[in-house]
Amino acid sequence: MSKLLIVGTVAFDAIETPFGKTDKILGGAATYIGLSASHFNVDSAVVSIVGEDFPDKYLNLLENSNINIKGIEVVKGGKTFFWSGRYHNDLNTRDTLDTQLNVLADFNPVVPESYKDAEYVMLGNLHPLVQLSVLEQVENPKLVVLDTMNFWMDNTLEDLMKVIEKVDVITINDEEARQLSGEHSLVKAARKIEEMGPKYVVIKKGEHGALLFQEDQIFFAPALPLEEVFDPTGAGDTFAGGFIGYLARTGDISFENMKSAIIYGSNLASFCVEKFGTERMQELTESQINERLDEFKKLTQYETQLN
Amino acid sequence: MSKLLIVGTVAFDAIETPFGKTDKILGGAATYIGLSASHFNVDSAVVSIVGEDFPDKYLNLLENSNINIKGIEVVKGGKTFFWSGRYHNDLNTRDTLDTQLNVLADFNPVVPESYKDAEYVMLGNLHPLVQLSVLEQVENPKLVVLDTMNFWMDNTLEDLMKVIEKVDVITINDEEARQLSGEHSLVKAARKIEEMGPKYVVIKKGEHGALLFQEDQIFFAPALPLEEVFDPTGAGDTFAGGFIGYLARTGDISFENMKSAIIYGSNLASFCVEKFGTERMQELTESQINERLDEFKKLTQYETQLN
Repeated sequence: MSKLLIVGTVAFDAIETPFGKTDKILGGAATYIGLSASHFNVDSAVVSIVGEDFPDKYLNLLENSNINIKGIEVVKGGKTFFWSGRYHNDLNTRDTLDTQLNVLADFNPVVPESYKDAEYVMLGNLHPLVQLSVLEQVENPKLVVLDTMNFWMDNTLEDLMKVIEKVDVITINDEEARQLSGEHSLVKAARKIEEMGPKYVVIKKGEHGALLFQEDQIFFAPALPLEEVFDPTGAGDTFAGGFIGYLARTGDISFENMKSAIIYGSNLASFCVEKFGTERMQELTESQINERLDEFKKLTQYETQLN
Repeated sequence: MSKLLIVGTVAFDAIETPFGKTDKILGGAATYIGLSASHFNVDSAVVSIVGEDFPDKYLNLLENSNINIKGIEVVKGGKTFFWSGRYHNDLNTRDTLDTQLNVLADFNPVVPESYKDAEYVMLGNLHPLVQLSVLEQVENPKLVVLDTMNFWMDNTLEDLMKVIEKVDVITINDEEARQLSGEHSLVKAARKIEEMGPKYVVIKKGEHGALLFQEDQIFFAPALPLEEVFDPTGAGDTFAGGFIGYLARTGDISFENMKSAIIYGSNLASFCVEKFGTERMQELTESQINERLDEFKKLTQYETQLN
């Protein structure tokens, strides 16, 4: 069984959407990535940090999803990272209402001894120097995937570039790809980002799907058209977790197999947005995933009569 | 050979994009539809109207593309419909600078006797009463496709609804689908529009591709990711022309075959935007279309290793 090491936040979120609002609920990039990747029967561990206020039930939830949590530091007397946001009516944009770094401000990640030989490493959205530190602690990974966002491009670009240089795959959204590359065309943007280090560039377009680039090859996966998106929080992380989970499970990091990984990522993300926070991911079954995989096939696969 | 009847504008366009501007060049919905459908070896005819100022070379261009032009009325002393627009930097939005209806103001379409038995009818974007008049002149079409836009929803909704009620397929863009249905979710929007009449709903999302709906079935075709979009004028019409051209050529109007029709439409539209106006469509070869069909396959088709 392949080992998958995940670094990212484990946090409290408070979310408002046009459909309602939550109190502090379980959130964080590593949480979503871990829950998503847990469907692929890999040996995964999360490196993160929480405060003493973080409920045992949440840690148990992760453990019960076969996620090793010995890399999650619990800081005595500390408070857990908290994010609060409100989505606009179209659910494509949101305002951050509050961000409390708390224990995350002094996070010094320690990779558990038994995961230093992880073949697959997922660097979830976090300060690039934390991502870099994790990367320096793993021995010889087969594939490193980086997720990041515009906040780090705005504030710590130099550090971010050091991480980008070292990873195999980067996943960012379309506007971030344009910002990072200075190119409007996503084809040109991907090419420029490849020159910065990554062999593969994944550009997430939310409800408009995701693109995978490697040199002259391009693959596109649509988002599943849904009647209603309830809460987009964690969709990008869930996508990344499905992507790397599928790759770790199959052990095949070819471009052809990454096509399926993108489909699996989109598949899992399509569930994530159906309920608040991690709620839908907690109750998700294998047969539901497989049924939806059939929907993705019907949505995208065709046979032409000419040629 | 199937007969395809096309009604729509044949016009002059003057276009400004970030890459340059044109004088009055050949344009119009029926022009783009006809040039696109001409690649499918069908017997097509255009019903339209132009003024005496319309150059013979443009009419010859259509005839040389195997488009029957006896349904194009040339008004002595009249002036041809003229549209002028400027695209914004992202090429997704544009301002109309000038619209001169000219001969289009009194257009009374007459379907040539020999095309009243056309199996395929494409109602290009135009006043809904003109579309309705054409529809009333054809005898027993196998498939009627309607293209329209928000302008008619804003100004002649009642007339538009009479046409929508009678067609098999409607093609509109995402914002128009939302406006027409009052639903933000495109899945819900398509369902509501089906209740207005059409069995199939095609929602065009520009650079984000196109969706085909019929009851619970959905198919998605991406737009081909391009390094540079030069001029989007006519892309939607070219898409529609490829869609109905492929259906007329294969004679199969099943949902499964419409999937390929959507891919062909996207394929042809991807060429249209590469140069100003109809320029790229005039020089397009079959082998270029087939090569790009392979690109679409690579872009969208995959094999999963699990399941």
